[in-house]
Amino acid sequence: MIVRRNPGFLRLFLVVRGSILPKILPKVLIITLLALLVAELHKYFPDLFPDYTTAPFTLLGISLSLFLGFRNNASYDRWWEGRRQWGQMLIDSRNLSRQLATLLDFEVPEGRQRLRRIAHLNAAFVHAARNRMRGIDPWHLLDDHLSAADRTMLAGRGNLPAGILHLIGQELGGCFRRGEISDIALRDLNTSVNSLSLAYGSCERILNTPLPFAYMLLLHRTAYLYCLLLPWGLVAALGLATPVISAIIAYTFFGFDALSEELASPFGTEANDLPLNAMARNIEIELLEAVGEPLPPRLTPKNHVLL
Amino acid sequence: MIVRRNPGFLRLFLVVRGSILPKILPKVLIITLLALLVAELHKYFPDLFPDYTTAPFTLLGISLSLFLGFRNNASYDRWWEGRRQWGQMLIDSRNLSRQLATLLDFEVPEGRQRLRRIAHLNAAFVHAARNRMRGIDPWHLLDDHLSAADRTMLAGRGNLPAGILHLIGQELGGCFRRGEISDIALRDLNTSVNSLSLAYGSCERILNTPLPFAYMLLLHRTAYLYCLLLPWGLVAALGLATPVISAIIAYTFFGFDALSEELASPFGTEANDLPLNAMARNIEIELLEAVGEPLPPRLTPKNHVLL
Amino acid sequence: MIVRRNPGFLRLFLVVRGSILPKILPKVLIITLLALLVAELHKYFPDLFPDYTTAPFTLLGISLSLFLGFRNNASYDRWWEGRRQWGQMLIDSRNLSRQLATLLDFEVPEGRQRLRRIAHLNAAFVHAARNRMRGIDPWHLLDDHLSAADRTMLAGRGNLPAGILHLIGQELGGCFRRGEISDIALRDLNTSVNSLSLAYGSCERILNTPLPFAYMLLLHRTAYLYCLLLPWGLVAALGLATPVISAIIAYTFFGFDALSEELASPFGTEANDLPLNAMARNIEIELLEAVGEPLPPRLTPKNHVLL
Amino acid sequence: MIVRRNPGFLRLFLVVRGSILPKILPKVLIITLLALLVAELHKYFPDLFPDYTTAPFTLLGISLSLFLGFRNNASYDRWWEGRRQWGQMLIDSRNLSRQLATLLDFEVPEGRQRLRRIAHLNAAFVHAARNRMRGIDPWHLLDDHLSAADRTMLAGRGNLPAGILHLIGQELGGCFRRGEISDIALRDLNTSVNSLSLAYGSCERILNTPLPFAYMLLLHRTAYLYCLLLPWGLVAALGLATPVISAIIAYTFFGFDALSEELASPFGTEANDLPLNAMARNIEIELLEAVGEPLPPRLTPKNHVLL
Amino acid sequence: MIVRRNPGFLRLFLVVRGSILPKILPKVLIITLLALLVAELHKYFPDLFPDYTTAPFTLLGISLSLFLGFRNNASYDRWWEGRRQWGQMLIDSRNLSRQLATLLDFEVPEGRQRLRRIAHLNAAFVHAARNRMRGIDPWHLLDDHLSAADRTMLAGRGNLPAGILHLIGQELGGCFRRGEISDIALRDLNTSVNSLSLAYGSCERILNTPLPFAYMLLLHRTAYLYCLLLPWGLVAALGLATPVISAIIAYTFFGFDALSEELASPFGTEANDLPLNAMARNIEIELLEAVGEPLPPRLTPKNHVLL
Repeated sequence: MIVRRNPGFLRLFLVVRGSILPKILPKVLIITLLALLVAELHKYFPDLFPDYTTAPFTLLGISLSLFLGFRNNASYDRWWEGRRQWGQMLIDSRNLSRQLATLLDFEVPEGRQRLRRIAHLNAAFVHAARNRMRGIDPWHLLDDHLSAADRTMLAGRGNLPAGILHLIGQELGGCFRRGEISDIALRDLNTSVNSLSLAYGSCERILNTPLPFAYMLLLHRTAYLYCLLLPWGLVAALGLATPVISAIIAYTFFGFDALSEELASPFGTEANDLPLNAMARNIEIELLEAVGEPLPPRLTPKNHVLL
Repeated sequence: MIVRRNPGFLRLFLVVRGSILPKILPKVLIITLLALLVAELHKYFPDLFPDYTTAPFTLLGISLSLFLGFRNNASYDRWWEGRRQWGQMLIDSRNLSRQLATLLDFEVPEGRQRLRRIAHLNAAFVHAARNRMRGIDPWHLLDDHLSAADRTMLAGRGNLPAGILHLIGQELGGCFRRGEISDIALRDLNTSVNSLSLAYGSCERILNTPLPFAYMLLLHRTAYLYCLLLPWGLVAALGLATPVISAIIAYTFFGFDALSEELASPFGTEANDLPLNAMARNIEIELLEAVGEPLPPRLTPKNHVLL
Repeated sequence: MIVRRNPGFLRLFLVVRGSILPKILPKVLIITLLALLVAELHKYFPDLFPDYTTAPFTLLGISLSLFLGFRNNASYDRWWEGRRQWGQMLIDSRNLSRQLATLLDFEVPEGRQRLRRIAHLNAAFVHAARNRMRGIDPWHLLDDHLSAADRTMLAGRGNLPAGILHLIGQELGGCFRRGEISDIALRDLNTSVNSLSLAYGSCERILNTPLPFAYMLLLHRTAYLYCLLLPWGLVAALGLATPVISAIIAYTFFGFDALSEELASPFGTEANDLPLNAMARNIEIELLEAVGEPLPPRLTPKNHVLL
Repeated sequence: MIVRRNPGFLRLFLVVRGSILPKILPKVLIITLLALLVAELHKYFPDLFPDYTTAPFTLLGISLSLFLGFRNNASYDRWWEGRRQWGQMLIDSRNLSRQLATLLDFEVPEGRQRLRRIAHLNAAFVHAARNRMRGIDPWHLLDDHLSAADRTMLAGRGNLPAGILHLIGQELGGCFRRGEISDIALRDLNTSVNSLSLAYGSCERILNTPLPFAYMLLLHRTAYLYCLLLPWGLVAALGLATPVISAIIAYTFFGFDALSEELASPFGTEANDLPLNAMARNIEIELLEAVGEPLPPRLTPKNHVLL
Repeated sequence: MIVRRNPGFLRLFLVVRGSILPKILPKVLIITLLALLVAELHKYFPDLFPDYTTAPFTLLGISLSLFLGFRNNASYDRWWEGRRQWGQMLIDSRNLSRQLATLLDFEVPEGRQRLRRIAHLNAAFVHAARNRMRGIDPWHLLDDHLSAADRTMLAGRGNLPAGILHLIGQELGGCFRRGEISDIALRDLNTSVNSLSLAYGSCERILNTPLPFAYMLLLHRTAYLYCLLLPWGLVAALGLATPVISAIIAYTFFGFDALSEELASPFGTEANDLPLNAMARNIEIELLEAVGEPLPPRLTPKNHVLL
């Protein structure tokens, strides 16, 4: 995620990091060069170019804008839902931790031990969820929060975060069976664990189900064809200004298209993706702070990018 | 569901699987041939063609884009809601299984037996829901998870998945009546069963209620008429370029229309439909893994298509 | 609701049932005749018609499309919410029936009697809700499910479905007071009854609150004025093709308008309305099946229309 | 709220009540007169008017339509949410009343007294909420439902409806402390009271937070400027038809703008506002009917307007 | 937030406070001056300007409107969600306070003390949330509501509002452990505390996650380029009217852009931001009123602006 104040008028055109421009520059250049070529051709052989009206290009351009706009909406919704679910994980972790502290006595050694154990399991869950979303080593950063026994028990699980929630459930079940909490309290705590499970499962849904492939094909193909034909349609009307206008239209369409694609997979490490590392660390810090454990450092943006 | 990385610029135009093009190719070809014919006619008998303005075609094209855009939104919402409900089934199955494991002791034979039985009933429910959504043999893959007695009891039920939820309810009621779980715990477990019932019922709603038929009629008719008239309207302005532009516009409009139709029924087995087989199998694997039963293999994409 | 496979290219233009065309045919014909007249006038007295540009008609047409699109969205949302609420009634009825079967023993005569009585009350509720939505005799089909005492008690109620939910509440309260179910179980069952009440109340909201009247006025007036002026604006540019284009534009605009109006009141008996009779019957069948009562026949589409 | 059947073709143009036309008539007339003046000027001094293209007006008109469309969506959402929250109050009132009747015995004098008292408090809450939304005397119609002691206790409260919910809470707390209902039942009833509180608080949000003022300024200013410039831009192309087209465009834009403004404040007493009086009365009637109290008359539309 | 009645026709153009105009005036002036220059150039050297068609500008302008419209929707949703979450905090505070008053006896000194303490903690939470949203001194206005011991305990917490919710949880846990409330009641109260936590966490999400930076870049760049090129494209068609139309288009586009940016960060102190100070004070007043404590004054708008 890009973290910076909005740049002023002039600097606006110089910002590269976070911009979608580098990604689409080759395509925009190709269209611009083509438009230059077409404009030169038109200057020397105007008779080759019938006096096309631009109306069909207007129509097609507006249709394309509408359909790109639809895809952009869907992509943004995925990005924002991803963010909401991670916010939900923070909220659920806070609630679980606060509810436990309400029920168990932190001043008593057993109470403190339970609170600490569940805080560590919760932190391990959050890091494991992040690892899965980012597609990195599933055990990354989990060692500080899981005991050797936990790691053995989880070794074979296909879905590590779900397995860790299972351990939290076991731990709460133990408290219940030992009579430390009532069945009502267990139900209350379970509600928060279920909510964590829901947030994580929703993130898995976004991760595993891309937007329908056919949208991408249809929109990419139409956008390419459109921008390749555009100079031929505009040259009779715009003459030597054709490359400028073609470049701006190509920049707008390819830019929206590329940005939609980046946002549709919000859990990666591109500049506009969600800062999962920083969010997981924040949850970890809040959990450990509540049970008086030493805190890892907060993550800060590097070059205006927070991962 | 198509599972593949986005193809590069050139390969983009060669991808067939997952593309909507094969479905609409005949229609696009008809429009292109018509446009060729009209362009030839215009070359030899230009006087037959009054110098039509393209403005009414622009207006009608934009209106049509807006209305196609509306239908596309509604279709995509159905597709994505279908996906959400199946994700919800996974989450509810995990929650039910974890809550039960919290309450019952897996180390005790009776506890283990209850957990396994409910895991199998849950897996049967998921496969039965898949069978119904896909319109295949309702008993497909259920034999591994249902006892002969279950099958007898379910034989007459009109709605098999609802019947299996009934069995899960009976099983939980048995645990409650035998005093193995309290009424609070029963309520907690019931919440998850109700949530499974809600997700399944929502899928039934999408399956049984298509988009209003009149939308389809109105949009198909208008799109056909529009594309059939388009060459006559464009030829005075575009001359020999008429077939190219007509083909692209027909491809865009028919393509969006056909894709909307495919997504509006998200539970089929077309390339862009939801991978119900793979999702049902994933839920089954997670359920059986949690109770230490042998696991069936995961499903993988064939030719980039996951069913 | 229209239940049929999508017709092929040629049959598409012949389908009448479910089409919005019969409703708007008179208006479309009037516009077409007017356009014919204007085109003839233009042929003989071209000097009477200044060489109008079509641009203002394009602008007004696009604005009108946007506003029609808004109304269409709002109408479709009402239709789909109506469907969702009826789906919710099915799900809640299933849940209530399953939860009761979990708590009460079907093998014991008293348990069986309670289950059957509540299943019948539930079925009566669903039919009474349907009757109210359709504006027919409130007691239609209720006799099979209500005792004479019930009918007496309900005789004076202004809102029959709410009265039947009251009876279900009384029945559950009786089970609780007789100690057959605990207060926790009562709360659990109440949740399902509340959910039925919510779904029914939401349907009442859609039924009793039409879209703001001023929208209808504004859009109808603008659409009429627009289509009446259109031939005058198009004739200079399109000549004898004016009636064709005018007819298609009138068909599209009036069609969307009429379809929006039909969907905005989703509980009627028009071709695109929701099949309340069939849905109520399905719920009735599932309820009676669960308690082993004789089943009424399912409703099937007649002439592709399911009521 | 306007309650009437849709008028036919001819009467459509005569309906005044519920129409937005009277509100915007002066503005539309000014634009029409200006357009007449401009058209006359153009007839006698055509050289004063360069041959402007209408394209920039098309562009600006479409942008304006899009932004008006956005504001209209936001306004309609406020109107419909207001309706939903009042529907929710009806549903919650029904639920609270039914749940209480499930728990307390209407045949016993104490039970009947409790039921009646809470029904009256609930009715008082609904009227107090209505009074606040409408900005009228906060005590209007409350005397029938509150005792003198209640009125004294509520006298100093800044927020009367919230105060009445407090009284309902006290009454339920009394039942609990006297052992008439269990803590589970209290929790169940509290859920309904919380839901009433949520619905009321959501209405307060809509009432107290208008759409951002800057939207109104930006859209009004742009719409005025646009309509004032329109005749100058259209006259070269449309000649004497300028006033007709200008009037229709002004009617459409000002009409949508004025209607959005009316719907954005849905709790007033304008023709398209929500019928709070009738809805509050309906809730009151259902509450009193359930406890066998005498019923006030239902409110009916006057001149097609239901308040 | 601007609090004033809608101004009349003439005053509308004079309102400055709340208008977005002052923010964008420099940009609009630059475009206007450029357009004046271009118009002058065109008058004296018309041959330098080929007779450009405005069609490409129409197309690009409509695309830009669509994409600005998307961003505007997303920004408004953030603003309205921020408002909803603060409304939720008010509702949850009311509910928590009412539920406690139902359970504890205000007439008994211990009961009264508990009610007052939790009301003060709740008020402190609300002010602390406001402080964080506004980025001001985290302890502003908390001294009246927190004891010295509370302040010591909270001193080290990274997230002060979450810490205060923890204290509320501790206080409720104390009531439960001392037997003053049952576990069911604790669960009921916890639900409200969890809801406060959810509302606060949702506000944090809006605060910490701006709209993707790349949207801002893409839209600003396109809007600037577009408005800078516009006069060159319009001058051939509009002549000396170019500056007027350019200024209005620049005002509309820059205005929508700037307003979207203001609404996307709804918790600041700009004219159209949410009145967090007034909302926090209202919650504080309702909480203190319910436990009979002295009330601070309500905040009122200054110069039509409520902070």
